[in-house]
Amino acid sequence: MTATDETPGELRAADPVALTAELIRCPSVTPEEGGALALLEGLLAPAGFACHRISRGGVENLYARWGTGGPVFGFAGHTDVVPVGDVADWTADPFGGMEADGVLWGRGATDMKSGVGAFVAAALDFVGSTPPEGSVALLITGDEEGPAEHGTRAILDWMAENGEQLDFCLVGEPTSVTRLGDVVKIGRRGSMTAELTVFGTQGHTAYPDRATNPLPALAAACLRLARTPIDLGSTHFQASTLALTSIDTGNPASNVIPASATARFNIRFNDLHEPESIRIWVDQQIEEALVGTGCNAEIDWTVSGESFLTSPGPLTDIVVDAITDRLLERPALTTGGGTSDARFIKDHCPVVEFGLVGDTMHQVDERVPVADIRRLAELYGDILHRFFGR
Amino acid sequence: MTATDETPGELRAADPVALTAELIRCPSVTPEEGGALALLEGLLAPAGFACHRISRGGVENLYARWGTGGPVFGFAGHTDVVPVGDVADWTADPFGGMEADGVLWGRGATDMKSGVGAFVAAALDFVGSTPPEGSVALLITGDEEGPAEHGTRAILDWMAENGEQLDFCLVGEPTSVTRLGDVVKIGRRGSMTAELTVFGTQGHTAYPDRATNPLPALAAACLRLARTPIDLGSTHFQASTLALTSIDTGNPASNVIPASATARFNIRFNDLHEPESIRIWVDQQIEEALVGTGCNAEIDWTVSGESFLTSPGPLTDIVVDAITDRLLERPALTTGGGTSDARFIKDHCPVVEFGLVGDTMHQVDERVPVADIRRLAELYGDILHRFFGR
Ligand SMILES: [Zn+2]
Ligand SMILES: [Zn+2]
Repeated sequence: MTATDETPGELRAADPVALTAELIRCPSVTPEEGGALALLEGLLAPAGFACHRISRGGVENLYARWGTGGPVFGFAGHTDVVPVGDVADWTADPFGGMEADGVLWGRGATDMKSGVGAFVAAALDFVGSTPPEGSVALLITGDEEGPAEHGTRAILDWMAENGEQLDFCLVGEPTSVTRLGDVVKIGRRGSMTAELTVFGTQGHTAYPDRATNPLPALAAACLRLARTPIDLGSTHFQASTLALTSIDTGNPASNVIPASATARFNIRFNDLHEPESIRIWVDQQIEEALVGTGCNAEIDWTVSGESFLTSPGPLTDIVVDAITDRLLERPALTTGGGTSDARFIKDHCPVVEFGLVGDTMHQVDERVPVADIRRLAELYGDILHRFFGR
Repeated sequence: MTATDETPGELRAADPVALTAELIRCPSVTPEEGGALALLEGLLAPAGFACHRISRGGVENLYARWGTGGPVFGFAGHTDVVPVGDVADWTADPFGGMEADGVLWGRGATDMKSGVGAFVAAALDFVGSTPPEGSVALLITGDEEGPAEHGTRAILDWMAENGEQLDFCLVGEPTSVTRLGDVVKIGRRGSMTAELTVFGTQGHTAYPDRATNPLPALAAACLRLARTPIDLGSTHFQASTLALTSIDTGNPASNVIPASATARFNIRFNDLHEPESIRIWVDQQIEEALVGTGCNAEIDWTVSGESFLTSPGPLTDIVVDAITDRLLERPALTTGGGTSDARFIKDHCPVVEFGLVGDTMHQVDERVPVADIRRLAELYGDILHRFFGR
């Protein structure tokens, strides 16, 4: 499946399953390109897509656009995959792209070489068979599973510098929960990570009154943070959550009261909050927990992403109606779960996420029914038709 | 100062300060004997002490007894010392035994080569000048600062096997707080160390409701343990205390809820408790803290020593009266502070602890006024006279 010995007619008929299998055979563990973007470029360029490789920080990304006018519909996805672990644990070669009994096996089968295979096949078919008035743009990154510093961000930076703008973007991450099409994501919670250090005064356990033990104070702060509701949720979001991930002291001496100790926690927050309001809330909890302890605290924050919401309306209706018409069941619009590159795209244009069931993602024996890939490509095609009024 | 070229007359006049300086010059960092016990044996044997070296587990100990009948008065102490750290930080060579301006410098100057020097000098003087009806026994170990597995325990085991029994024992550890003679210890709290592990179910911070986070449960248990009084103290003891020393998880992933986490704490308990009653109290606190958390807990215990008390009476009066008569101030009888080998001796006979001010013990520039060593030797002599009714 290389583009050079195929005709435009064959490209129009690009098979999303064969394309996904070819992508799985590219060993593109983050940050390796692994041949995946070259494979796509080889298909897209001959079909009239202007292809731009955007290399930054050792990461390869691809921006491909068919058409020059507006409106511009974007698909976004990633070809990088998480490591496979011990290959011996796999039933099939994780980079083999084996299909058996209607199931395609391999790393990236659900997250998300299948999503890329489906939207590339749908886009090729659409521009080949029913050329639209407007443009179809593909944002394909090689760093979504890694630090994501030089992935979708690099594409968006390049687009801003080059006057490229989308009107709507669909991220092809696996969003379905039990059946293809049951869930579309219209927003994501924000994510922030904190490192809280509580300082006391070191001492000997035989003389605890001569020390100021930071550990009860830290335990009190952790307990208050973990057990106080941040909010009760909003129209489209669950309640914000706080999860303690580590408390560490590293004191090997059983008769020494330590001078300080550290806790780390991750907060997933909804559209009632911005990072600053979360910081204020956390500071208040810690301040109240530390009253009377004689300890003080320092906190370091890392903001991974802010919350966002693409409010239900005409754009989300395009996706919802396409799914409802073909599958005869209306998808739920949700905002739960982890982060994706939609957190970057939301600053650029309205964005929704819709893709396969991701139940085996990041696991050994990642796999997907081939029927779901074909159905997903059909749905992506339907969405393109609806967006461009065809 | 070797015994071989001295006469019994010279031995009687053994100088406690010169003897302490000689002991400091022996580099007897635990578990090294460093020549310290050989030095003492060389003084004691010619003066009529039956000397027994008790070697066990790579540790050298000395049991020396003058006399064959009862009653038997015992002095106990150690010649091993803690490491000196960086010698460059010391004003004087830590093994130099330098005396300047009435102060003797070096590792062991207070803890407790001076105590050994004082009681050995007092014992030599006493048996040489006023031979008692009864016996004076010296229990000198080379492993008090280390694991103490093969130190005083080995001496006591050997004594039991050989029919050796004390009627009273004085441990020469530094007990004085601001002035020599202000504090005599008549008991010690017990010490137990616990490692508490709380188990939950691992998960992703984006889906905290699918995990059971052990950290809030551990924080709740720690907070309850740290803030619930164990007791209110007893006639001769302060309240029992619990000091958290470490909470550790070791989870490097900021988006993963860990499966388990561990806390360690040290309990110093008074004569209202035995290890078993402490275990029951701790189990109750943890059980109540974990209600509704879905977590469970395991706890590993290490008992370092049980509490003990030598109730004030005729034996403690001997020590108190000797100090009061000579120093014109009555010592306080206390039970606070850390552990000592008295925790082993208490199973053998009534025991009290009395020695120098220990303010520089275990520190750089450990040192002691030579006048205090001389005064301590006089007080130990007074105690011997009173015990034997002279
Ligand atoms: Zn993904
Ligand atoms: Zn000592």
